[in-house]
Amino acid sequence: MTIEPSRTDTRLDPYVDAYAARTNGLQVSAVRALFAVANRPEVVSLAGGMPNIADLPRAELGQTFARLVAEQGVQAMQYGSGQGEGFMREHIVEVMAEEQISAHADDVVITCGSQQALDLVTRVFCDPGDVILAEAPSYVGALGTFHANQCEVVHVAMDEQGVVPEALRQAVLTLRANGRRVKLLYTIPNFHNPSGITQPVSRRQELLAVADEVDLLILEDNPYGLLTLDDEPLPALRAFDAERVIYLGSFSKTFAPGFRIGWTLAPHAVKEKLVLLQEAATLSPPVFGQFAISKYLEDYDWRGQIRKFRDMYRERRDALLAGLAENMPEGTTWTHPRGGFFVWATLPEGLDAQAMLPRAVTARVAYVPGTAFYADGLGSGNMRLSYCFPTPERIIEGTKRLGEVLAGELSMRRTFGVGAAESTRNELSSGLATDLN
Amino acid sequence: MTIEPSRTDTRLDPYVDAYAARTNGLQVSAVRALFAVANRPEVVSLAGGMPNIADLPRAELGQTFARLVAEQGVQAMQYGSGQGEGFMREHIVEVMAEEQISAHADDVVITCGSQQALDLVTRVFCDPGDVILAEAPSYVGALGTFHANQCEVVHVAMDEQGVVPEALRQAVLTLRANGRRVKLLYTIPNFHNPSGITQPVSRRQELLAVADEVDLLILEDNPYGLLTLDDEPLPALRAFDAERVIYLGSFSKTFAPGFRIGWTLAPHAVKEKLVLLQEAATLSPPVFGQFAISKYLEDYDWRGQIRKFRDMYRERRDALLAGLAENMPEGTTWTHPRGGFFVWATLPEGLDAQAMLPRAVTARVAYVPGTAFYADGLGSGNMRLSYCFPTPERIIEGTKRLGEVLAGELSMRRTFGVGAAESTRNELSSGLATDLN
Repeated sequence: MTIEPSRTDTRLDPYVDAYAARTNGLQVSAVRALFAVANRPEVVSLAGGMPNIADLPRAELGQTFARLVAEQGVQAMQYGSGQGEGFMREHIVEVMAEEQISAHADDVVITCGSQQALDLVTRVFCDPGDVILAEAPSYVGALGTFHANQCEVVHVAMDEQGVVPEALRQAVLTLRANGRRVKLLYTIPNFHNPSGITQPVSRRQELLAVADEVDLLILEDNPYGLLTLDDEPLPALRAFDAERVIYLGSFSKTFAPGFRIGWTLAPHAVKEKLVLLQEAATLSPPVFGQFAISKYLEDYDWRGQIRKFRDMYRERRDALLAGLAENMPEGTTWTHPRGGFFVWATLPEGLDAQAMLPRAVTARVAYVPGTAFYADGLGSGNMRLSYCFPTPERIIEGTKRLGEVLAGELSMRRTFGVGAAESTRNELSSGLATDLN
Repeated sequence: MTIEPSRTDTRLDPYVDAYAARTNGLQVSAVRALFAVANRPEVVSLAGGMPNIADLPRAELGQTFARLVAEQGVQAMQYGSGQGEGFMREHIVEVMAEEQISAHADDVVITCGSQQALDLVTRVFCDPGDVILAEAPSYVGALGTFHANQCEVVHVAMDEQGVVPEALRQAVLTLRANGRRVKLLYTIPNFHNPSGITQPVSRRQELLAVADEVDLLILEDNPYGLLTLDDEPLPALRAFDAERVIYLGSFSKTFAPGFRIGWTLAPHAVKEKLVLLQEAATLSPPVFGQFAISKYLEDYDWRGQIRKFRDMYRERRDALLAGLAENMPEGTTWTHPRGGFFVWATLPEGLDAQAMLPRAVTARVAYVPGTAFYADGLGSGNMRLSYCFPTPERIIEGTKRLGEVLAGELSMRRTFGVGAAESTRNELSSGLATDLN
């Protein structure tokens, strides 16, 4: 993997006058740059959001796919429908019913991962300069898509129940009073990325009431909803309102990401535009993956597999929380997610997670600095810790290493009045540029 | 499949004030609407561009994929690189060498079909109102993508050797004199869709000379290049110029479309922007398909398979040309493609291919009216005839049916002074709206 964030800027680019304005919004994300470092075997990566799919019945799945190719290969390897195959959309309706969504397969559009659904919805609604509201913090990949489409992201405050309804109302009213076009609230109600926070049902209803009051569309992103670790799945925002909510779903966390099959469920008129844009973007979303996942849903106990995933992630979540309690220095706080992949930690006053990162990597532990999840530069005192991929033992080891890094930073601060990290900030830039080539 | 072109316009759409301006460029294509009709078994479809993949060794491929999932499923079903996997890009370099392209795998970006490459390149270069030059006629799917990205398409005249260099020069100079930003020439040099025309090497060099002179980027779309039926593959435009040509390739016609694996090869600085936009659009292009196609290229005689495809398509091309010579009324002319999938027919003076379509479908033969391939309403006297999907016997039968329809139109015209088709134009609209629900 080659990542050279500054190369285009520093050497002569003969095409510089030809690019579209939207290319100014394209940035190398901190998460992406981290993957290369975090993938080294000696590093405990609490950085990535990759699901652990090692426990899928791979040999058996292989035989299922072999039969699929032999018996239906002429269809499964051919072009497909721009909206996605009907049988796949029927299965998706069944999956969404687990979160009390009542929908028709005709209103589902299949996408190349739910990331593409994000992109298509943004393109259907947003002209350059339009505003999208998002939680503070929010999913780094969504911020990237919004910026690539020349939208401005305005963050809305969260509390321990998610987006604060009054903050949402005020944001919309203030922005509109200033002549801004506010198009969407982008929200992850379950096991939020990166904060791990879940909106209780009462909060969901309050948010929908505000959205009604100010006439705002909600873009509900729900990749983790079925990976609930302590409770039954909550009803989705879309379960309460079919006209105001555009829903995004994915098989990446409940099955596997490599087929790149996600979807959006949208009101009928919106769906029609999404299909036309999908056809312009890909002709048809991945066809073989739709056949493969449909076979999986038909022939396997997928609900049982999700229960196994829950048990596996619960053990890892518990390991991370126990490790943090054991190893974090005083003054560190963190969220207690009831599902999903992520814990959001707040460092003791004065520490800078981004500046500290090279020291952490040297100590063989990686995380994502909080700044990655804000469009406005906030988050330097935060980090996202993922428990999805490493084993519980490695997670505990990671928290030990992280605790030592934090203790060292605090000690340095007490002795010299500044964090050690700040003195290595330049090291980070040049170090990353070299390491990641 | 539901296609209701006018439904959004005629019923109340509560989101109408919220859509982005680009949604005005979204249209249901004539080709798409035709698929539903053409798929009926009793119709000989000379309309679609679907490759015939029935002869792939499906049972054996299934076993290959079974081993892939069992042995490498943890990687093949996981998230992948935004640029595409390195091994896939290495294979693509090898495939492109067949058309004398010398390239580095680092400059290849994998996409969800080459259609997505079209979309990404357009988004990297084009702001709303920018001009893209394209052959007259041009690929309907490209026109759709350019319009969805709010570009204006200006057609450039073709002769029997493809784009006319002097027409290209004049178009660029005139548009620029009028203050227009001309971003790209979009061209299909081999077995052009829809015209079937191929640029000889001398024409390619003349076009590159003009592009140099007026400083224009060329977007070379080459899905059919290896499906040459009479000659060795020609060197690609990209083979002559690595800095001025952005190349699009695809496995959809040389292997199978259902994995949705295409690619673009771009100059280094452009490639970096394409990767960032690809990550914003999909995180990573289809991963499993990259593993599957790489296994195919490694373990199978893919060059031998392409030779088999050539033999199969040659027989079908010859059947179509023989059937046209036998059955078309005087005054009809058509191109003689040396590869690819398409013949472009020009009807006797006064006949309208679009108006005639319902009569043709009633006679159980389908084609794509020429108007689909123009951004400016031209092409009513033309039709695209595909020989890729039906058997030679069915193709011959299709030309008989088509000949009868044309003869009937001509006879009606001689008798009444107008085409029968014109009197059924309203029938078409309402008929299609009903048939395609």
